[in-house]
Amino acid sequence: MTRNVSGWAAHQQNGSLEPWSFSRRDLLDDDVAVRVEYCGVCSSDISAIRHGTSFPLVPGHEMVGEITEVGTAVTQFKVGDKVALGNIIDSCGKCPPCRAGRENWCERFPTLTYGNIDPKDGLPTRGGYSTEYVLPEKFTYHLPEGLDPAGVAPLMCAGITTYVPLKRWGAGPGKTVGIVGLGGLGHIALKIAHVLGAEVVQFTRTMDKADEARALGADDVVLSTDAQQMAAQKGRFDLILDTVGAPHSLEPYMSALAMDGTLCIVGIPEGDLTVSPLSLIYGAKNIAGAGSGGTRETREMLDFCAEHGIVADVELMRPDQINEALARLARNDVRYRFVLDLTAQRQ
Amino acid sequence: MTRNVSGWAAHQQNGSLEPWSFSRRDLLDDDVAVRVEYCGVCSSDISAIRHGTSFPLVPGHEMVGEITEVGTAVTQFKVGDKVALGNIIDSCGKCPPCRAGRENWCERFPTLTYGNIDPKDGLPTRGGYSTEYVLPEKFTYHLPEGLDPAGVAPLMCAGITTYVPLKRWGAGPGKTVGIVGLGGLGHIALKIAHVLGAEVVQFTRTMDKADEARALGADDVVLSTDAQQMAAQKGRFDLILDTVGAPHSLEPYMSALAMDGTLCIVGIPEGDLTVSPLSLIYGAKNIAGAGSGGTRETREMLDFCAEHGIVADVELMRPDQINEALARLARNDVRYRFVLDLTAQRQ
Repeated sequence: MTRNVSGWAAHQQNGSLEPWSFSRRDLLDDDVAVRVEYCGVCSSDISAIRHGTSFPLVPGHEMVGEITEVGTAVTQFKVGDKVALGNIIDSCGKCPPCRAGRENWCERFPTLTYGNIDPKDGLPTRGGYSTEYVLPEKFTYHLPEGLDPAGVAPLMCAGITTYVPLKRWGAGPGKTVGIVGLGGLGHIALKIAHVLGAEVVQFTRTMDKADEARALGADDVVLSTDAQQMAAQKGRFDLILDTVGAPHSLEPYMSALAMDGTLCIVGIPEGDLTVSPLSLIYGAKNIAGAGSGGTRETREMLDFCAEHGIVADVELMRPDQINEALARLARNDVRYRFVLDLTAQRQ
Repeated sequence: MTRNVSGWAAHQQNGSLEPWSFSRRDLLDDDVAVRVEYCGVCSSDISAIRHGTSFPLVPGHEMVGEITEVGTAVTQFKVGDKVALGNIIDSCGKCPPCRAGRENWCERFPTLTYGNIDPKDGLPTRGGYSTEYVLPEKFTYHLPEGLDPAGVAPLMCAGITTYVPLKRWGAGPGKTVGIVGLGGLGHIALKIAHVLGAEVVQFTRTMDKADEARALGADDVVLSTDAQQMAAQKGRFDLILDTVGAPHSLEPYMSALAMDGTLCIVGIPEGDLTVSPLSLIYGAKNIAGAGSGGTRETREMLDFCAEHGIVADVELMRPDQINEALARLARNDVRYRFVLDLTAQRQ
């Protein structure tokens, strides 16, 4: 038995998204069904449409919605609960990362919200550009009270991906943190780092974003295309979080790190990262990676955002505007995250 | 006034080392003069001879010797004291790294033991392949009692360069540490990591070093040229210390890291380091750099080595064998560090 779901799918590489009906599995004992209300539009959705190998492809992995049905063994949720879910919907549950609540690094590889095959039912996973999602309760999170639901959706990917390395690398009072890129990830990173108490500096390629960056929490703004401004940053930063997916040189940021400083890559550029060994050695610097988070970190991040009133700045789009949203996101024309409003179609 | 010193110098790139007389400054108030007794032969000496731009070049930055004269303001040393000195002989003393006792990252750049211009006297610095060295007492260290002096000399570069990152990245009980390369740096790293209580695994390209590695403290030995053995290391290591200066792929070592693991580069390959962003991101891994240490860390390292009886395994050479030593080092024919015995010429 399966459940019929309406969604929006690309049918080939670079294809437009079109309405498409498909099925999801009926609930297993520990599954919940979620009526999707909001779904963020992440730049990795664009990558998947461009480079995916298995179509039709239904993107979307930043969801907020309502529980409509629960499996017989579900204990944490009931019908009517508001919930959020992100880019991981399952994992092996047995390996050391899974046992540590860091399922995003599952040694078997976690089951991703779309574009994967789910080992539990053998079906391709299909994302949140759709009316309903079915997943284990373990990867379902209670929607924090008091936060705008549409603004919570992007926390489930952009938020967790920046929260984890900011915490791990010690963003806080007395530390200077740089954020490279002021997009979906960057603007949330800026808010989180500011609330954590760090001095936060936004690197941007266009000074027209300077005032906005300051309004979001930046103590300073540096134009990354200005070699003189960049040279003046030498040795300033304990942590630089690089959210830019487009290829760019890491050297100016390595130079901007203080002794023991860390450049953390969370955007995923195409091609290899390259850096001079001496840029890394002189000052005992690091290049680190991070991406998403596990169930333990995601709960912590949601609690943190609820406590401090942090949500993404979003622009709501109707599902029939999805292709427009993707096109505008591809040219960085968004302040700062598009979120599909799936309640709109039902009105 | 200057002091006449006999040394061994290269007079051009790739040139043989030949006896050469030169002068050092007379002692400033805080200087000491050290009669050099032992000087290690480091692979960076070969790099300097090959790629240096200022000749004559007197290499050598791993010294043990005896104080023969002290400046009027010297308080920590007296004539006759046995001392060690390393690859840094001065620094600005005012920047944050200097104030933290980590002068190797001095923002002005530290004064290196050879191949630099010393800002204090405007003279080129000339290294320890010589009869006498003059430097500030601040960068002079008491020789630990109970250790073979010739074996201490290499601690001043190879020892400190590996001790600092092993401590920083948590080598100790419950941690698994890999050492890439079993040369001057690698064999000391192996001893230190073993004494720190980590499970230590030696990566080597030739299994004929396996028994030696075990004798030095390795719990396990992996043949890095064997793709199957390397694949079996996946996810095993908390820290891998890469001491190999020759170009090589980092990807097999990135794969061998556990979640949150660190690959620390202390060898300096020519050319850029390259790594796939996903190798870094998946598992939240790091690539770090390290090299040498400051006065605080060097004192700590010497105390640690004295407490645990750690010295380098050395092969003594007479100064007139220096070209043979350099040639053998260039082809890795050394167990594990050549040390020039400068007491030999005086007998």
